[in-house]
Amino acid sequence: MVEFIDGGITTPQGFKAVGVHSGVKYRSLDLGLLYSEVPATAFEAFTSNAVKAAPVQLMMNDNSPKLSAVVVNSGNANALTGRRGYEDAEAMQRAVAAELSIDPKEVGVMSTGLIGRFMDMHKIQYGISKAAKELSQGREADALMCEAIMTTDTIKKECAVRVRLGDGTLVYLSMISKGSGMISPHLKVLHGTTLSIITTDAVLTPKFKDTFQQILDDSMNMVSVDGDQSTNDTCVMMANGMAGGKPADDDPAFIDALRMVTTKIAKTIAMDGEGATKLITVEVTGAATHDDAVLAVKKIINSPLVKTAIFGSDPNYGRVMMALGNSGCKFSLNDVHLTIKGGDMEVPILDSGSPVFQEERSVEVVRMAMDNKEVILQIDLGVGNESSTGWGCDLTYDYVRINAEYTT
Amino acid sequence: MVEFIDGGITTPQGFKAVGVHSGVKYRSLDLGLLYSEVPATAFEAFTSNAVKAAPVQLMMNDNSPKLSAVVVNSGNANALTGRRGYEDAEAMQRAVAAELSIDPKEVGVMSTGLIGRFMDMHKIQYGISKAAKELSQGREADALMCEAIMTTDTIKKECAVRVRLGDGTLVYLSMISKGSGMISPHLKVLHGTTLSIITTDAVLTPKFKDTFQQILDDSMNMVSVDGDQSTNDTCVMMANGMAGGKPADDDPAFIDALRMVTTKIAKTIAMDGEGATKLITVEVTGAATHDDAVLAVKKIINSPLVKTAIFGSDPNYGRVMMALGNSGCKFSLNDVHLTIKGGDMEVPILDSGSPVFQEERSVEVVRMAMDNKEVILQIDLGVGNESSTGWGCDLTYDYVRINAEYTT
Repeated sequence: MVEFIDGGITTPQGFKAVGVHSGVKYRSLDLGLLYSEVPATAFEAFTSNAVKAAPVQLMMNDNSPKLSAVVVNSGNANALTGRRGYEDAEAMQRAVAAELSIDPKEVGVMSTGLIGRFMDMHKIQYGISKAAKELSQGREADALMCEAIMTTDTIKKECAVRVRLGDGTLVYLSMISKGSGMISPHLKVLHGTTLSIITTDAVLTPKFKDTFQQILDDSMNMVSVDGDQSTNDTCVMMANGMAGGKPADDDPAFIDALRMVTTKIAKTIAMDGEGATKLITVEVTGAATHDDAVLAVKKIINSPLVKTAIFGSDPNYGRVMMALGNSGCKFSLNDVHLTIKGGDMEVPILDSGSPVFQEERSVEVVRMAMDNKEVILQIDLGVGNESSTGWGCDLTYDYVRINAEYTT
Repeated sequence: MVEFIDGGITTPQGFKAVGVHSGVKYRSLDLGLLYSEVPATAFEAFTSNAVKAAPVQLMMNDNSPKLSAVVVNSGNANALTGRRGYEDAEAMQRAVAAELSIDPKEVGVMSTGLIGRFMDMHKIQYGISKAAKELSQGREADALMCEAIMTTDTIKKECAVRVRLGDGTLVYLSMISKGSGMISPHLKVLHGTTLSIITTDAVLTPKFKDTFQQILDDSMNMVSVDGDQSTNDTCVMMANGMAGGKPADDDPAFIDALRMVTTKIAKTIAMDGEGATKLITVEVTGAATHDDAVLAVKKIINSPLVKTAIFGSDPNYGRVMMALGNSGCKFSLNDVHLTIKGGDMEVPILDSGSPVFQEERSVEVVRMAMDNKEVILQIDLGVGNESSTGWGCDLTYDYVRINAEYTT
């Protein structure tokens, strides 16, 4: 029913976008602008880090039910910039509003990049003015917008789907995202990580908010690159209703579509974690509560020792159990089953808490399973029926290099 | 009053020790034995990881008020080894008891090394028998014991002090420890990380337990190399009373001495974190509660982004604030002062939440401060009077190398 298509942020009807070079960064595109022909019902989620960047503070204060545009700059996070930073974020909002003749409150603002530096507003103003003139629709516009919001990303995070709703309406849904470090989102509707924008021409009403949060909790909020949650992370969904039809709030096909899109992007973010060579998927089943399952998934996916072992295809699975034991999740060791999957191999490791094998040859089999681009750790806690899945990546020399040299 | 001296685990009266090669490891010493001529009052703290190694389970079950000996092997953690592992730990206890003609319940057992492999008990039995015959006193015995318990450690963690108590008694206090990875201890008396043994000839009674826990909480439990807490961590203090005099339970000089010894070892463990090139000290003051201060210290010291920035001397101090914001500690950004110290430089960074400077030249000063073997991050939250200090290390290429190749 949900069909992935070659599309991007302007694939749903009525959306235009562009990415330009404002000069905040030395060479690459550093300012993206998205515009909807009609004001779109907005769903917003922000970082729950107590230190929130100026644009996050501004959008939370505005709490606008409708957005017509979103401006995103990369290169400077406008975080730890005090009152001046807040005024700069407001100035970005006003500049976009003036260029597009819309209400400033209908302009979303996002920033990513270095923390603790004031924005060069001359460059930003120049960029906004240029972007407003170059807004357009189609795959080139999609690509420019997507590129403009990237920092250390190496893969474009973009996807689009088409889905037919229960009432027969054909709607499009698209998402772009940036983020490869400082990633352990805990996005709360109005209280989030990574910059993400979702566009759709479906009709949605504000009561979709809870479903939006739940889908983020199961997708974006289950990604972790380093367990560090950013000061800037924001996810905005704009539903401009231009496809017509009934509200899609409770439409199972729409909910499926949004879940598929956010899950796909979540996995892409994990796979593109700074320096990552492997995608790690942790699936915890048999938990007493959903919260327990989430605790276990997050502790395992954030453990530096698990992450380095997977980088080295080191069959040191005891580290998975060490992390599980530290998670605070309720279980009894004697009930635990652990399986490691990679490629088309599926290797049982622990059976009811005991190692399945001891010989060197068997250990070699674990190493072979781990020597794949995607490694899946399956843990059945055997105490209940709740489950959770999360995505992360290995911890590599390149993660250290990228982050030891970031500002230089 | 407290005087550091050249001494080790056998410096307090009545203690003998040795380290031997049992064959669990290919070449190096891998089994250490400590013996007290008279049964010593024992204080024990264990990992709070829900997955506890067999020797930890055994010692917790025994809960012995007195210990006469402690056997420690490296190379195999005897963790995730089920019933057979537990029986192996018991067999170690019995073997030591038989060799030394003591009650098995007076034998402490500690293991460190690979998780998920059964012990080679033939080698262990051979090692215990050899060690029992070679027990002796003095700096050579100290060195052998200290070496036998090391795994990826590169520095010996050993120190000794002499202190005169209130009643005039001169007592000796000594501590050895191993641990450079999987370190984020949360040692709870009878429910802890790193293997540590403290010997003293002071007289202590069981009521010293709370003071022991409090000193561990301020020292060993404030060290973090990677935020991963081991399945095996154990700290045992043996007080054999051979110095005579009154019980030292409430003696300020003794308490000072123990605090100085555990703090010195804690800092050495942090400095010797796997792959570490720098010691990071985080001092949080002005917190509303002590728990808040601890939360803030631990989150900052465990942040991969803070750790890599310090490795690269990258003046990306926004990451410190990012970590603080994620800690759950209560503060208002406008009250926060941040200072970075390194060598004899002291650089104010944030003053009441605002960056002190913006220019490139000033950023260079931060880099110079960070380019030192010890970097101190001082954060004054400005909301209260509580404080906490913790120690960690930078995250380097070598951390990744060591842990990606551990079992191979």
